[in-house]
Amino acid sequence: MKKMIIASTSTIHGSSYLEYLLPTLQQFFSDVKTILFIPYARPSGITYDAYTQIAKKAFATIFIDVKGIHQYKNPKEAIQNAEAIFTGGGNTFELLNQLYKKDIITDLQQVVNSGTPYLGTSAGSNICGVTMMNTNDMPIVYPPSFDTLQLIPFNINAHYLDPIKGSTHMGETRETRIKEYHVFNKTSVLGLREGSWLAVSGKSILLKGNISARLFKQNKNPQEFEAGSDFSFLYE
Amino acid sequence: MKKMIIASTSTIHGSSYLEYLLPTLQQFFSDVKTILFIPYARPSGITYDAYTQIAKKAFATIFIDVKGIHQYKNPKEAIQNAEAIFTGGGNTFELLNQLYKKDIITDLQQVVNSGTPYLGTSAGSNICGVTMMNTNDMPIVYPPSFDTLQLIPFNINAHYLDPIKGSTHMGETRETRIKEYHVFNKTSVLGLREGSWLAVSGKSILLKGNISARLFKQNKNPQEFEAGSDFSFLYE
Repeated sequence: MKKMIIASTSTIHGSSYLEYLLPTLQQFFSDVKTILFIPYARPSGITYDAYTQIAKKAFATIFIDVKGIHQYKNPKEAIQNAEAIFTGGGNTFELLNQLYKKDIITDLQQVVNSGTPYLGTSAGSNICGVTMMNTNDMPIVYPPSFDTLQLIPFNINAHYLDPIKGSTHMGETRETRIKEYHVFNKTSVLGLREGSWLAVSGKSILLKGNISARLFKQNKNPQEFEAGSDFSFLYE
Repeated sequence: MKKMIIASTSTIHGSSYLEYLLPTLQQFFSDVKTILFIPYARPSGITYDAYTQIAKKAFATIFIDVKGIHQYKNPKEAIQNAEAIFTGGGNTFELLNQLYKKDIITDLQQVVNSGTPYLGTSAGSNICGVTMMNTNDMPIVYPPSFDTLQLIPFNINAHYLDPIKGSTHMGETRETRIKEYHVFNKTSVLGLREGSWLAVSGKSILLKGNISARLFKQNKNPQEFEAGSDFSFLYE
């Protein structure tokens, strides 16, 4: 049975890496000794090694080891054999680009659909949707496609931001950007605010974290959903 | 001789469409009766007709007519015959996608290099650089390439935003995003703040608008350049 945690962000303001999620992760990964970490998104361009160390340090506090996928000769085998998988945040274009380069899209889909527990934060959450078309990231590399893992039936907008009251900046708000997306695309988009996450268990997709999320459907007004909501109706 | 105005934004807070630029445009387009408008970026998904009307209304105040490229049967001929060209803002992915679909990249390069006056705002400015890799827009469509018109030897980051002091949002700052870009790419990036623009005349590329701009070069600290600076040194 599919088991995933799809989080808006790895870190909330004023706390350390993954800190706010650790009680949840301890339960979620209760049977897991070692997590396979996918560091391809390289936030601020840090190396795979440096990024893996950050994840390792956080998981050490709940007595779970972390190994970077780059430490394995064969990334496909690493995924097939993983006890659990964590894809960290950073740049979604580069992350997806590497998943295609290493030809591990299908492997990831297969093992997660078969029950390998999966944690994504930020870019690692964006790739769980149908496409990466609702990322906030800069297109710093050109991936062979925007199609992602399609493990849930809608797209994620991570770090969802409400319009800033009184702002004089003329760049588009997040809501305007998603509205533009729906001129060209049908797939729904869930704006996940920082501090919230989706707990996926089979077909159930529950909103966690005590903050509401904003759902954008084509040709409909956006709608707020309270924590505890189940988005499995989007499979229909 | 190449003659371009490459503006960060069409509109500054508290004024109407193009208003802050009109005195400059009146001079820039002094010999022009009709401007060819490229509405492909469709801000908020508005139609080509509606968008062209907005541009038409603004230019009417300086007695210049505007025609949308979609009103012509053959967009290549429309560009080749244009007295002047204006590409408006919106979504850079969709704008570039249409330029490729209509096969008018080479035509645009050719006529602008030959002296057809060109105005770009926001997305219409992003496409003047080497690639569109420093857009802030959402990847709502998948263009066949990120390569753009290469009319200037660097990339533009339009609506450049300084980090917001005291923000608790954990999404990347603009500077962090451009830093990530330089891990994978060599081309320099100019962060153009709202209210500033580049006046291109042959090889000269002058910063206008009384606000400084921020230049990002690979493996260098970012540097502020005052209004009046000439960026033609980036041809070297």
